[in-house]
Amino acid sequence: MVTLQGEASDPANQNRLPYSNVTITNPLITDSSNLILRLEMGDPKLLVPYWKMMSDKCSVVIEGWKFMSHESDASNVCQYMLPELGDAIKRIHSLVHNAAIQDKHIIVGTGSTQLFHAAWFALSSSDSVRPINIVSAAPFYSLYLDGVKALRSGLYQWAGDAATYDKDEPYIEMVTSQNNPVVRSASQGKLIHDLAYYWPQYTPITHHADHDLMLFTFSKCTGHAGSRIGWAIVKDIQVAKKMVHFIQVSTTGVSKESQIRAAKILGVVCDSYQSLGPKGSEHFFDYGKRLLRERWDRMRQVIGQCEVFTVAKPSSAYCNFTKESFETNSAFAWVKCEGGIEDCGTYLKNLGILARPGRLFGVGPEFARISMLSTNDEFDELLTRLLNARREYN
Amino acid sequence: MVTLQGEASDPANQNRLPYSNVTITNPLITDSSNLILRLEMGDPKLLVPYWKMMSDKCSVVIEGWKFMSHESDASNVCQYMLPELGDAIKRIHSLVHNAAIQDKHIIVGTGSTQLFHAAWFALSSSDSVRPINIVSAAPFYSLYLDGVKALRSGLYQWAGDAATYDKDEPYIEMVTSQNNPVVRSASQGKLIHDLAYYWPQYTPITHHADHDLMLFTFSKCTGHAGSRIGWAIVKDIQVAKKMVHFIQVSTTGVSKESQIRAAKILGVVCDSYQSLGPKGSEHFFDYGKRLLRERWDRMRQVIGQCEVFTVAKPSSAYCNFTKESFETNSAFAWVKCEGGIEDCGTYLKNLGILARPGRLFGVGPEFARISMLSTNDEFDELLTRLLNARREYN
Repeated sequence: MVTLQGEASDPANQNRLPYSNVTITNPLITDSSNLILRLEMGDPKLLVPYWKMMSDKCSVVIEGWKFMSHESDASNVCQYMLPELGDAIKRIHSLVHNAAIQDKHIIVGTGSTQLFHAAWFALSSSDSVRPINIVSAAPFYSLYLDGVKALRSGLYQWAGDAATYDKDEPYIEMVTSQNNPVVRSASQGKLIHDLAYYWPQYTPITHHADHDLMLFTFSKCTGHAGSRIGWAIVKDIQVAKKMVHFIQVSTTGVSKESQIRAAKILGVVCDSYQSLGPKGSEHFFDYGKRLLRERWDRMRQVIGQCEVFTVAKPSSAYCNFTKESFETNSAFAWVKCEGGIEDCGTYLKNLGILARPGRLFGVGPEFARISMLSTNDEFDELLTRLLNARREYN
Repeated sequence: MVTLQGEASDPANQNRLPYSNVTITNPLITDSSNLILRLEMGDPKLLVPYWKMMSDKCSVVIEGWKFMSHESDASNVCQYMLPELGDAIKRIHSLVHNAAIQDKHIIVGTGSTQLFHAAWFALSSSDSVRPINIVSAAPFYSLYLDGVKALRSGLYQWAGDAATYDKDEPYIEMVTSQNNPVVRSASQGKLIHDLAYYWPQYTPITHHADHDLMLFTFSKCTGHAGSRIGWAIVKDIQVAKKMVHFIQVSTTGVSKESQIRAAKILGVVCDSYQSLGPKGSEHFFDYGKRLLRERWDRMRQVIGQCEVFTVAKPSSAYCNFTKESFETNSAFAWVKCEGGIEDCGTYLKNLGILARPGRLFGVGPEFARISMLSTNDEFDELLTRLLNARREYN
């Protein structure tokens, strides 16, 4: 029996109510911890040790009189973007070769969250009587749906899983890095490629992505989620201008402190590849990939042992950046409950693990999403608790 | 004859197109500068010298591994708010006595811009068939109107000047610090008090404001517009939670770098009053008030000399903070063209001064809004150019 104090019945409340310090009285959990493991969000804490190691190279000092204006560069489409950040973004894409940036516009946002709202705004028509449909292949990022549904825009509306979309109407499809567009009759579609995880610690860099509107985020690139910095790479200047207009009326630009820090840290990542020896512990993407690989190896072993869950076999490909083939190390484990367990989210909660239930992503309740990006201690505890499932189940 | 290259005919473009380095060929402008004076925005650059003077006390150092999570304090309604910032906000209001904060919730936003969107969201009903009306007394802040119109929400809509609102329907009224609510039959109204300028450098602190929903911004308090930090003080926890939900789905929280820097700088302001002698050049609000007073004295003198414009006489009151009576030193001059000049904005543009035309604020074209917060050089140049109007006019 598990008691979750302050538990939210409404999934939208999961972001808002306290889950720390919740008492778990499940006798199967024999460890000394009485905290629920909050693995429903993707806070990338696993990289904190790396940035502690690099700390002296990454510090930024901001004097009291700096960055007082909300503008930066009146000659740029994205007026509020610091030139240093624009340069760092170009530099990291040139290093990793994951996105074609030449002759395109960089638009900075308050995280990629703000940027997909800006992109929906820019790709919809203010003249249209009906809102444009937004679709994405399930399991889609739950914040797409939350964002569209909560704000009740007259410009766009949620239209569900791209795989089942068959309307003869204009639509916007959110395409994530692992998938190609899936809407079959694509004549009226506009695509947004959300490439948050298209970095070599997560997945092989198989090609130089060259799409009309691509989204990236500092949060998933280096793990700095608290900075709320994302960027869009946009082909059409009119779309870029509309996105900037959206960000101006929504937040009057983007934090300068975060921009200068992101520029610094992206620069340190590039420096490590350009000034250090061929391979070493200080190479950021190699460090992150090794850590995630080790986690996934342990995760698969535990899942194999406990015989309650399954996870899909990842795809493998040659990575142009690391010059080797490897399997995708997803930032989240999509866990499926087997053996007649119908609600995977509730089942995990009874084990003291807070995951996001599949229905928030447009898939069945037998699925749940668990973050693989927690701290080392949290990850060890996750594996212990998953192993408890075996004892309970057998 | 003035040539304004890159000029926007659409006022919404004013935030997006480059205005710097625009050539002015008006022979009446005899100074060496060929730049148009961009005084249509409120970037508070006049305070840069103060923060240079205080620079050693205000620097923040942020190490590479800090603030990696987008959460801060799971026990707070505003989960993403750094406790240091919450404490600094409470401290500055305790110092200035401009807002009652006890038993209320502090919600941090990406500038007050995001907070008024969050407040509209929180005060509207997702069950309602019709969007709720938003009104404000003219001249209202143009970004209220821009924000509502651009985003085309199904939850709320713009309904114009509060003075002429007479519908028997629910509404939200934006009340600014200088005005009381103006809708006459107020039974169905919800109020948002935008107190951006309710600080003692601008206006006498006559009372401890104690309203249901009050908005403040770091930008206007200390002049740090680039940080994009604002805060709401909210009485009703359900409204506070809805505002946080809006900010979570819109930007997944607020920049941690900006939050920690705002906490530091607000702390330095409080320190200066609590540890220094009674009055001195290092007291922030006194410094700002003296600077604005000097500017307004010079502005009124020039406007009196050139005989083309008028500005309204400001009100005077006793200030509980400075312990003296003084006239309001507005951050913007509302300039009215006299003598048959119909379009004040265009007239000023011909003098090389970019102001915001009155129609964007719901008042007549004979009005325009000029920022009083520019740099010293820009302000000197403004007065020179306004004096040129006299020569042209006579």
